[in-house]
Amino acid sequence: MFFIDILGYLAGTLVVISLLPQTIKSWKTKSTKDLSLSRYIIYVAGLILWITYAILIKNGPVAIMNGIGLILAGSILYLKLKYK
Amino acid sequence: MFFIDILGYLAGTLVVISLLPQTIKSWKTKSTKDLSLSRYIIYVAGLILWITYAILIKNGPVAIMNGIGLILAGSILYLKLKYK
Repeated sequence: MFFIDILGYLAGTLVVISLLPQTIKSWKTKSTKDLSLSRYIIYVAGLILWITYAILIKNGPVAIMNGIGLILAGSILYLKLKYK
Repeated sequence: MFFIDILGYLAGTLVVISLLPQTIKSWKTKSTKDLSLSRYIIYVAGLILWITYAILIKNGPVAIMNGIGLILAGSILYLKLKYK
């Protein structure tokens, strides 16, 4: 079971951390033409619901992981709106 | 509890479905310059681990949801490699 738990945390961490290179790239290049605006609006909405869900079921790791995801995805959405 | 379950499913669905507009946009415009390649490589790796985790804990909905995510994210990665 311990191995399976590690696998779950690793999977979640990779999925969230994968947003970082996109945030850095968009911030550096100031170019977000190819990013889909609706993708990030729906994504941010989904992450907010995810965090609400995690708080309701009292799952700290899921809330924190999606909280970090929300900060990164929210930053990309901001950059998309700024440099569209 | 029922309401909380619905919230979880809705959150997961939104997060996965949010990939669709990006797939369609990249496919239509044939332009993926602003997309981060490492974002999609790490994301696809994370989704594969997520599916493995879901299969190991025998959670069908999570496996299916991440499977759809993998198809969409994999398509974006393919388009990124093709039109970089």
